[in-house]
Amino acid sequence: MDDVYKRSVELHKQMQGKIEMTNKIPVDNSETLSLVYSPGVAQPCLEIEKDEEKAYDLTMKGNTIAVVTNGTAVLGLGDIGPTAALPVMEGKAMLFKKFAGINAVPICIDSKNTRHIIETIRRISPAFGGINLEDIKAPESFEIEEKLQDIGIPVFHDDQHGTAIVTLAALINAAKVVGKDINEMKVVINGAGAAGIAIAKLLRCFGIDSDLCMSVKQLIVCDSKGSIHRFRRDLNKAKTELLKYSNFDDVDGSIQEVIKGADVFIGVSKGNLLTQEDIKNMADKPIIFAMANPTPEIMPADAKAAGAAVVGTGRSDFANQINNVLAFPGIFKGALLARASTISTEMKLAAAHAIAKYVENPTAEEVIPSALDTSMAKVVAEAVEQSVYHEREMAKRIADADAEYDAL
Amino acid sequence: MDDVYKRSVELHKQMQGKIEMTNKIPVDNSETLSLVYSPGVAQPCLEIEKDEEKAYDLTMKGNTIAVVTNGTAVLGLGDIGPTAALPVMEGKAMLFKKFAGINAVPICIDSKNTRHIIETIRRISPAFGGINLEDIKAPESFEIEEKLQDIGIPVFHDDQHGTAIVTLAALINAAKVVGKDINEMKVVINGAGAAGIAIAKLLRCFGIDSDLCMSVKQLIVCDSKGSIHRFRRDLNKAKTELLKYSNFDDVDGSIQEVIKGADVFIGVSKGNLLTQEDIKNMADKPIIFAMANPTPEIMPADAKAAGAAVVGTGRSDFANQINNVLAFPGIFKGALLARASTISTEMKLAAAHAIAKYVENPTAEEVIPSALDTSMAKVVAEAVEQSVYHEREMAKRIADADAEYDAL
Repeated sequence: MDDVYKRSVELHKQMQGKIEMTNKIPVDNSETLSLVYSPGVAQPCLEIEKDEEKAYDLTMKGNTIAVVTNGTAVLGLGDIGPTAALPVMEGKAMLFKKFAGINAVPICIDSKNTRHIIETIRRISPAFGGINLEDIKAPESFEIEEKLQDIGIPVFHDDQHGTAIVTLAALINAAKVVGKDINEMKVVINGAGAAGIAIAKLLRCFGIDSDLCMSVKQLIVCDSKGSIHRFRRDLNKAKTELLKYSNFDDVDGSIQEVIKGADVFIGVSKGNLLTQEDIKNMADKPIIFAMANPTPEIMPADAKAAGAAVVGTGRSDFANQINNVLAFPGIFKGALLARASTISTEMKLAAAHAIAKYVENPTAEEVIPSALDTSMAKVVAEAVEQSVYHEREMAKRIADADAEYDAL
Repeated sequence: MDDVYKRSVELHKQMQGKIEMTNKIPVDNSETLSLVYSPGVAQPCLEIEKDEEKAYDLTMKGNTIAVVTNGTAVLGLGDIGPTAALPVMEGKAMLFKKFAGINAVPICIDSKNTRHIIETIRRISPAFGGINLEDIKAPESFEIEEKLQDIGIPVFHDDQHGTAIVTLAALINAAKVVGKDINEMKVVINGAGAAGIAIAKLLRCFGIDSDLCMSVKQLIVCDSKGSIHRFRRDLNKAKTELLKYSNFDDVDGSIQEVIKGADVFIGVSKGNLLTQEDIKNMADKPIIFAMANPTPEIMPADAKAAGAAVVGTGRSDFANQINNVLAFPGIFKGALLARASTISTEMKLAAAHAIAKYVENPTAEEVIPSALDTSMAKVVAEAVEQSVYHEREMAKRIADADAEYDAL
């Protein structure tokens, strides 16, 4: 592993920037210059002034997003600051381009003040068709995402929803493999940070009216102090919210205790947490998604030896890598194509189902497509785009029905 | 002209964005992915965390700037808003790439509040090696530029200084053509907006200690109400500042009156302002830079017929086009190469001299290089970079001398 770090620094030194802005046509005569710049450019400007929607037709906006961080939760490195986060943002931008052809611009914000971050993103939004929030510490990231839902372009915190979507996709197929119904499953999530909470939300589909929604029967989320229930007095706002859709029986116990009898363990916490004994205590044919990086909560071989039917991790060197890259390029591409103003739960569910469906014959060793599959983004984009049109159609029907009723 | 507008809209529709973000290397295997992204990317991040200067070696920062507007003074269109300004910002970015190979990212800020614009730029600065302010209304643009001089990367308002630098370059060569000494010239500037004030500053080199400095003998700036002098009671802050380095004799009069006997007229105001009679009233062999767009203050043919020795305009269809593009790509490239933290007057003067010198044998028809000359940026960058090193050397010598003195 030391070698990959050394070679990465060498490569970064050699490249001095992994992405670059390029001109889509050459500007090598005054004729072209008069069209892309003064005086001709005045006319596209005036058309957008009259109708801002035209920015999607006449500028880069419709295919360009900002990848925004403040550097407070970068990879597993923690708070390294906005400038030091830039190599990761550039890498993320490369993935957006590679998988979905989207222009992604790294924006590193020098602030830890939630209000300041919100207003900064709001102010720079006009040139972008979407905002991908990245590596911003929880719980600040929750508030930032929530408060920006009204800015007219999708704001999506990938560390939350990207992980949740791909986890749900993997779970849909894992359920098929073990022959269980998701709606009858008992699920335990270990880790109540950004990813854990988003996974919990998507698995319970709380308050969502959608054909795409599946909802696990019982869900318990644990943090470092054990299960989260209403008699705890140390819960932050995000964890308190969890109680709306998890642990209705207020089960109290350590992860080792609450995992007993569970069908699914989802770990987004820390390595070497579970023993083979813990796996043996779960229900028959348990599903283990041990996504802590780089060391999983339990190694796949150990989990399988103890009876796990399906095992997924965050790592590329094991089967079933649960990797955000399966979701975020297609999610944004679909949202941009449909000119969506938010990423709704409906769109997230559509993405999860599309990813799951892409694996034609799920097996214990393949519940999720390869992270490097370049066709995935297009499939996800198509599903997400269609779900936007479907939502709009539904909204229109309701509005029409209301109007009809009012006219009576 | 209608045709160029129509064709520009067609081209913009067809392109849906004139610039795009591209990957500098392909990401098509997990080996590369592990170097440009997780896990390898952690190491460059940590190196920058230890020493922020390393962002110039390991990321795009050292060759990337933001082109920032709020859309309040776009071309001659006025306040069209941040989204409608995007086609111009993209066009500007194309010029940065074409002439200097710089990555320029359009940032359109949705605010007219000077304080908000300043804090927004400050917060998004970590990923950029420089900020080019563009098409922001005066006097707000003055304050924004001034207050951002401490952020550690160059902040440069091209509408002011780009124009000033190229005008000075043209004037250096025009003076040679007419055989006059700039230091003995009487200059009248018409227009006290962003460009007029910046030109005035650079022509007087007020308070600058530099070998590169030339300073015109007499300078009068006029606005729409006539000459600016200390008995006017209607002057804003920027115009009041002008009195420090112009119109020491408090000449009062209209542009037609104060132009009498002047060696140079510089117009950054409105078309059809001067008559042939006005030109005849100037000193012998007058120099006319009539830069109003699209209609100059006086047409070149008329000015020449009335005795003008050298005529320049802002237009590409006449000789001597005074175009910012001769300056801004090289200015930023030089500043980025030297990792300058500001664009100093010394750097601006170095750029003006480099542009002037590039014309080997100045004539009345060629006091300035062609705007499409792709070698210009490199020449300017070299001069600007060297001037930064020269300033640093001077600062070091002064510090050393001080230390030596203190040690006595």
